[in-house]
Amino acid sequence: MAKITHVSPLAPAGGFPELPPIAGVRFATAEAGVRYQGRTDVALISADAGSTVAGVFTTSSTRAAPVLWCEESLRNSTLVDDKGFAILVNSGNANAFTGAVGADSSRRCAEAVAKALEIPSNHVFLSSTGVIGEPLPDDRIIAKLPLLEADLSDSAIADAARAIMTTDTFPKGAVRKLDLDGKTITLTGIAKGSGMIAPDMATMLVYLFTDAPVATELLQQMVSKANASTFNCITVDSDTSTSDTLLMIATGKADIDRLDSEEDPRALTFGNALHSLMLDLAHQVVKDGEGATKFVEVRISGASSDADAHRIGKAIADSPLVKTAIAGEDPNWGRVVMAVGKSGAAADRDRLSISFGDILVADKGWVSPTYQEQDGADYMKNSDIVINVDIGLGEGSATVWTCDLTKQYIAINADYRS
Amino acid sequence: MAKITHVSPLAPAGGFPELPPIAGVRFATAEAGVRYQGRTDVALISADAGSTVAGVFTTSSTRAAPVLWCEESLRNSTLVDDKGFAILVNSGNANAFTGAVGADSSRRCAEAVAKALEIPSNHVFLSSTGVIGEPLPDDRIIAKLPLLEADLSDSAIADAARAIMTTDTFPKGAVRKLDLDGKTITLTGIAKGSGMIAPDMATMLVYLFTDAPVATELLQQMVSKANASTFNCITVDSDTSTSDTLLMIATGKADIDRLDSEEDPRALTFGNALHSLMLDLAHQVVKDGEGATKFVEVRISGASSDADAHRIGKAIADSPLVKTAIAGEDPNWGRVVMAVGKSGAAADRDRLSISFGDILVADKGWVSPTYQEQDGADYMKNSDIVINVDIGLGEGSATVWTCDLTKQYIAINADYRS
Repeated sequence: MAKITHVSPLAPAGGFPELPPIAGVRFATAEAGVRYQGRTDVALISADAGSTVAGVFTTSSTRAAPVLWCEESLRNSTLVDDKGFAILVNSGNANAFTGAVGADSSRRCAEAVAKALEIPSNHVFLSSTGVIGEPLPDDRIIAKLPLLEADLSDSAIADAARAIMTTDTFPKGAVRKLDLDGKTITLTGIAKGSGMIAPDMATMLVYLFTDAPVATELLQQMVSKANASTFNCITVDSDTSTSDTLLMIATGKADIDRLDSEEDPRALTFGNALHSLMLDLAHQVVKDGEGATKFVEVRISGASSDADAHRIGKAIADSPLVKTAIAGEDPNWGRVVMAVGKSGAAADRDRLSISFGDILVADKGWVSPTYQEQDGADYMKNSDIVINVDIGLGEGSATVWTCDLTKQYIAINADYRS
Repeated sequence: MAKITHVSPLAPAGGFPELPPIAGVRFATAEAGVRYQGRTDVALISADAGSTVAGVFTTSSTRAAPVLWCEESLRNSTLVDDKGFAILVNSGNANAFTGAVGADSSRRCAEAVAKALEIPSNHVFLSSTGVIGEPLPDDRIIAKLPLLEADLSDSAIADAARAIMTTDTFPKGAVRKLDLDGKTITLTGIAKGSGMIAPDMATMLVYLFTDAPVATELLQQMVSKANASTFNCITVDSDTSTSDTLLMIATGKADIDRLDSEEDPRALTFGNALHSLMLDLAHQVVKDGEGATKFVEVRISGASSDADAHRIGKAIADSPLVKTAIAGEDPNWGRVVMAVGKSGAAADRDRLSISFGDILVADKGWVSPTYQEQDGADYMKNSDIVINVDIGLGEGSATVWTCDLTKQYIAINADYRS
């Protein structure tokens, strides 16, 4: 957006990574003037016939029209393998809380793309991100379709990563390569998101691509599984978007036998690469958290269950008091204790141990005799902070990632729309 | 604290109210140097024999030693009517997450007060508020007991309200009078709290007094009931303290028949006055929310149940994006929609209506045709904001109070301890 002029201090030092083309996937971007002039704000992604697709979406009960459209399309068993797919994304307007008018906008966009690319309209996936409650100027987007179609290129993924940004301060991309059956398989992905980010859903906009041939059902299984420990484990501000969407397309262009089942040992190798790719992108989203100056990993162990561990991790990562202490480089472990206590998960004060990085701060219910406040204060000056909490009750564990809460977050969000 | 030099713009215009004495209750304060020099930080409250007592406490699983002490004392059926009670409160140190050492500190404090006032030690209630995880210098507090006992006065309640402050910017007090059996009954109360405030517990430190004679069991019933719709319905930052305590003492000095049962019609009259007193103090706590510039009332109607309404109200009131928009005087109702969606309560986007004050912003799923953005923007300049959300599904309703989220909150909490 015009207002965001800084770049997150946590942005990848190397800038946007070199993302190799995925055979069968092409990208184009345009300036449709959805909300702002002078920036690309629409991206069209096409995938060749033979591709498969999977997705996960926000669980918000007020989710936006394009999310409902995507869910309906994925549920629809009429998806076929011998047609291609497309994804149309715009920034500047979320087409959320726009009622029947919004649903009509989505349908018109999908039908226009379907006509242009000669695919069924339920093979067109849609995402809109930006302001809530204003009608989407779909006519401006549709008017750009001839230009977008003509520009489709397998090397324009970086442009697409930029076109979908809103309050993001850097475009997000990642790549993984693996060897299957002696062939090199590539996975790439782009993401956007830096506010209204919280766990318990597929967070923000994420598009993943691979040339591996993967059966639809297996692709969905692997995406959902990896999502649970990546995008569902990050939080910037505990707020849940109405538009969060993650879509993955597998084009099947790589010349190997199709991955059909989790029993196939190659699925494990592929799944690990997919998890690594998604974790990379999830971390980039946190590192672009609005106003973030610290990247924080909260590791919970010894909880009664994994679910309890996740709940405690989220309580810590969402706590404004923990997050402001981190912003202030204050090793205020008392606030970590507070957050454990409020999580609702089983916890026993006198079994709790807390470390900042390798520094044991609190041990079995009280400050550690070895702890020196200065050590904690020195550690908090790092830009990457690890908070370890051992609940001391069982075997449950989880890791959650977040960022600090700074005045810059307030500045960004107190005048985002006005 | 030394760092807090401003006073909340939402502080009561008239300053601390005139609180009449309650026969049978006396107050004293002292400078014990618990954490800071040059300020009162200990308050002793004594109640004559014949008093009854009730309380509600934080539900945190990491609650502090004095909270555990109070809960144990209230559970203990050995409380007797023919001895008095006492409350000893300190600021500067929460005696929380201090293990067995903390429990010993609490016990020593209670026993010292018991000895000085010649009452059983389980008739002494304790509260500590301030930094977590540091040993309480109970020797410094106990050393002041002779002075405190000598100073006990029925007119020093305002001093007590000041002694228990931490990041509070103004002392909080309220009074209600009612007529029962032709006699004037008085209720007074003081409170502290401005951060780590969230619903689902008895929030922060609150002490209430009345000269009415009320049976212990009825007093507890009335306190718990009023608490559910007052202190349990406020939130500053969604964080839950380890020390929250509300205690009420009824001295029975008023010359009327004892209130024994909810069936007694006088109990309704008294309960209404008690609710009004507690709501007043709860609102004062929100108005002193750290960094607050706006007092926000979130009214939910039409939810599937009262519990769902409360959940939605809390999701809105806790949302950093809603709270920063209010700080920025931005009528960003899209964020209200977002918060409804993330609450987990039943909601249907297309039945949702939202008003800011009397201004209908969104009606049945979309922006109202009568809504003018300028009207919304003008309304948001008020210091008292009402957000009405009609879910359109049922009869459930709830009201939650909160404040905005400003840079000042970050400033206060990023360097509170260092």
